[in-house]
Amino acid sequence: MKTEMNVKSKLKIIPLGGLESIGMNITAFEYEDSIVVVDCGLAFPEDDMLGIDLVIPDVTYLKDNIDKVKGFVITHGHEDHIGALSYVLRDINVPIYATKLTMGIIDNKLKEHNMLRTTKRKVVTYGQSINLGHLRIEFIKTNHSIQDAAALAIYSPVGIVVHTGDFKVDYTPVFGDAIDLQRFAELGKKGVLAMMSDSTNAEKPGFTMSERTVGITFDHLFAEHCNSRIIIATFASNVDRVRQIISSAYKYGKKVVVEGRSMVNIIETASELGYLDVPENTLIQIDELKNYPDEKTVLITTGSQGESMAALSRMAADIHKKVSIKPGDTVIFSSSPIPGNEKAVSKVINELQQKGATVIFKDAHVSGHACQEELKLVYSLLKPKYAIPVHGEYRHRKANAGIAEALGIPKENIFMIQSGDVLSIDQDEAKVIDKVQTGSILVDGLGVGDVGNIVLRDRQHLAEDGIMIVVLTLERGTNQVLAGPDIVSRGFVYVRESEDLMEEAKQVLCDAIENCLSYNRYADWNRIKMVIRDTMNDFIWKKTKRKPMILPIIMDV
Amino acid sequence: MKTEMNVKSKLKIIPLGGLESIGMNITAFEYEDSIVVVDCGLAFPEDDMLGIDLVIPDVTYLKDNIDKVKGFVITHGHEDHIGALSYVLRDINVPIYATKLTMGIIDNKLKEHNMLRTTKRKVVTYGQSINLGHLRIEFIKTNHSIQDAAALAIYSPVGIVVHTGDFKVDYTPVFGDAIDLQRFAELGKKGVLAMMSDSTNAEKPGFTMSERTVGITFDHLFAEHCNSRIIIATFASNVDRVRQIISSAYKYGKKVVVEGRSMVNIIETASELGYLDVPENTLIQIDELKNYPDEKTVLITTGSQGESMAALSRMAADIHKKVSIKPGDTVIFSSSPIPGNEKAVSKVINELQQKGATVIFKDAHVSGHACQEELKLVYSLLKPKYAIPVHGEYRHRKANAGIAEALGIPKENIFMIQSGDVLSIDQDEAKVIDKVQTGSILVDGLGVGDVGNIVLRDRQHLAEDGIMIVVLTLERGTNQVLAGPDIVSRGFVYVRESEDLMEEAKQVLCDAIENCLSYNRYADWNRIKMVIRDTMNDFIWKKTKRKPMILPIIMDV
Repeated sequence: MKTEMNVKSKLKIIPLGGLESIGMNITAFEYEDSIVVVDCGLAFPEDDMLGIDLVIPDVTYLKDNIDKVKGFVITHGHEDHIGALSYVLRDINVPIYATKLTMGIIDNKLKEHNMLRTTKRKVVTYGQSINLGHLRIEFIKTNHSIQDAAALAIYSPVGIVVHTGDFKVDYTPVFGDAIDLQRFAELGKKGVLAMMSDSTNAEKPGFTMSERTVGITFDHLFAEHCNSRIIIATFASNVDRVRQIISSAYKYGKKVVVEGRSMVNIIETASELGYLDVPENTLIQIDELKNYPDEKTVLITTGSQGESMAALSRMAADIHKKVSIKPGDTVIFSSSPIPGNEKAVSKVINELQQKGATVIFKDAHVSGHACQEELKLVYSLLKPKYAIPVHGEYRHRKANAGIAEALGIPKENIFMIQSGDVLSIDQDEAKVIDKVQTGSILVDGLGVGDVGNIVLRDRQHLAEDGIMIVVLTLERGTNQVLAGPDIVSRGFVYVRESEDLMEEAKQVLCDAIENCLSYNRYADWNRIKMVIRDTMNDFIWKKTKRKPMILPIIMDV
Repeated sequence: MKTEMNVKSKLKIIPLGGLESIGMNITAFEYEDSIVVVDCGLAFPEDDMLGIDLVIPDVTYLKDNIDKVKGFVITHGHEDHIGALSYVLRDINVPIYATKLTMGIIDNKLKEHNMLRTTKRKVVTYGQSINLGHLRIEFIKTNHSIQDAAALAIYSPVGIVVHTGDFKVDYTPVFGDAIDLQRFAELGKKGVLAMMSDSTNAEKPGFTMSERTVGITFDHLFAEHCNSRIIIATFASNVDRVRQIISSAYKYGKKVVVEGRSMVNIIETASELGYLDVPENTLIQIDELKNYPDEKTVLITTGSQGESMAALSRMAADIHKKVSIKPGDTVIFSSSPIPGNEKAVSKVINELQQKGATVIFKDAHVSGHACQEELKLVYSLLKPKYAIPVHGEYRHRKANAGIAEALGIPKENIFMIQSGDVLSIDQDEAKVIDKVQTGSILVDGLGVGDVGNIVLRDRQHLAEDGIMIVVLTLERGTNQVLAGPDIVSRGFVYVRESEDLMEEAKQVLCDAIENCLSYNRYADWNRIKMVIRDTMNDFIWKKTKRKPMILPIIMDV
């Protein structure tokens, strides 16, 4: 028997979410008694998660190892990277580390949840390192569709892991510096153990264009539509996009209104923190619009994804309190639809056009994620031993893995891991050695986790064919029918026009119950309920080819 | 006062569906006592039409004018042009006119509904005209993603209307002739009153490529993946696509299986009618797959839109009875996602890749609809006085209108009409003079029209937050509470973990009911129900920020 003495510890990389779909990014890095958590994002509900508001990761693993957890380090301020913090912090109250704007956005969230005072936060600058137990984290400048995005170099005793965060390479950013490629190169020279990189656009060839190109497009569009009121929808958090719109507006002598709560909030935070300077007398309040001719005004709004409650959607549906779309308006979608939102966006475009607006939905947007050539660039600078594609559906991560392989990283050093996998890694070897609990916790209103699969299955059943409730009052002891059976339905048929069907159902049910009780006067209630359910299911299916939920309720007196 | 003597009648064009979204195409052409109906399609339910199987047009106008209706003329065999026939014919039993394959597909539908014997059908050939009262209809060859598509020249006493149907211009079709551009030109020379044309791709610049180009792609893909089993998903009705796959398979010495009920049906019909000839010993049954090495086999399947019950989706989810995806399989999507299906398609791609398949989802498809340059071509050949864009959402029809305008048709002669509009038209003038009843009739199981807005609203409410049922038995006359209140919920919370909430709710409810009855012992039931609803709504909202449907049921004994 071989005794292993002085076994050197390994680094464990444990994604707790984010590898099965877009969203819910959270990854634990563990070395001996130190755990550092990168990001803590939410996901938006899938189509079959009826009624769910948002989804957060199951962090049982962190709770079980709470003594080791040293802090959250955050790559940038998008919901899929910070949105679960105010839930997770309730159990894992450790310090948060982030760049200035990212922290500003986190602060807003914590304020909403009344958690600002109870949460330790530390703003980090690019180039700065923080020591968290055995791990040291350096923040490196990147570019993305939100300012202040960072890649992280995670220094462990077994080597450096670089996590790119969400990024693109923008040589000519609108604000601040370009991605710190030199630092990537330095780290690469030093030797990088593993690179975890953004796979969102890994299926797309080429290079994502600079944010600055959108500014040029705006200038052209403003010139072309100079006699028209211009309404531009974009992502609330894309402060650089807003900056460019304001700058074009200023050039063309137009006043700018920002509309939509989430956008107003972020713009305020960005302005306060020095990330957005606006030429004087350019921004006006929405109520001041009436003081200017239409062609002298620009509205920047939320709703670029067709979200039904966002400002642009409300304008399009004519339910916005302060702005109505008029013939002659020019509406620009400075966005592209996130997969799944295509129909919602199209609906808004149709409505806008029907009201006479000219709608421009192409070419006024660039992505915030790296395409294939950018990924190749970063791989080539870092030259990591191991590649771990993250941030994306399987297909995107697989495409990222393909790039790594094309660049010469051996296939066995490329890890298509899943949430919960414990990837143990050092200079000699990397392999998945364990699986920890992970999962999606559903948030519905104030409830966190009280809606699970059973409730969702019921909601789907109810959504599909509605419900029929059969109520029956029995005499205690004798099982004498005192009242009912009464049938009440919701979401099944329009009852007023289906009286015959309901009458017949009642008759069939009466017969079945009588039958059951005459066979056994003291039949237990579960038996009676089963008879009701089976009888109704059969009858309704035969008559309508539908399967509403049948809910028998028996009361006793 | 001017008396109008001998007023010449006008032609009325009355779209009864299809102008608000893709689907449900049906248009009445009326001249004096003659009505001819072009197409009779269904629509697939919108996302908010929970539980609905399909949507058919309200044809009240035809029913009200049943004596005038001479027949249905059908442009091609897609569901959005023929799918409502078996419903509408129940009330409007008039002859159907269509080309051979189109009629073959209609016959299959009628057979399913046991309506074949009671329906008059007449197969029409290209170039042939049929006289229907005052109107004469000529069928003109076009190209589309299904064979035997026709444009219609509708000859009326006031002039010729050309309805393009769904079309593209394919100079090199895989089977049969190219679109009959010469006939379009002849008609144009003769003088065309109005052109109604397919707007689906009117936002897309350029020219839709020939179906034949997909065949070349298949040849390349078959060569590249010659050592692999190949699975190709495409639209069930695209017989030419299937022909090309079979032809590539034959070239590379592979056997072909067709899998998926709808595709098998159409392929059978097409073969019987002479639209698909297959090289001998190429098609095999799915059970024979085991007799051949993987790399010698090709499967053509349904499921190109990620439809959860289609063959490919079942293979991807590993619930297909006869085919499992293996590492090394090559899966080709010969399709592009119809808007709204992007996420479903992506889900299938992820699943296929996770099972080790190589997935190709680009470049193996061409559209069946005309792009801008094709529309310009047909406008230029027909030179219609009036342009009426049809078949598409508002944005698509608006783009088509833009093309017409660019070609010199005066703006006032371009009609962006809506379903139900009665467009009165002759050589002197065209205008909307009336509005007739139209609408969507929802089909759910066997029920046609028994699910309306109220039922849908209930389903949405149930889907969002579930239902809480409060049952109460009162003594008749005295309103003494004999049993309850009992609370039963479905789709609201996981009850076992919410016992406290439910217990508290019951207590609050008891108090409220007692209160109500002590205030007025003989309160009527509506009053009591209102108290129950209000009390529960308030309590549940305060506790959970959710709004389940509250359904009070009172029984008396």
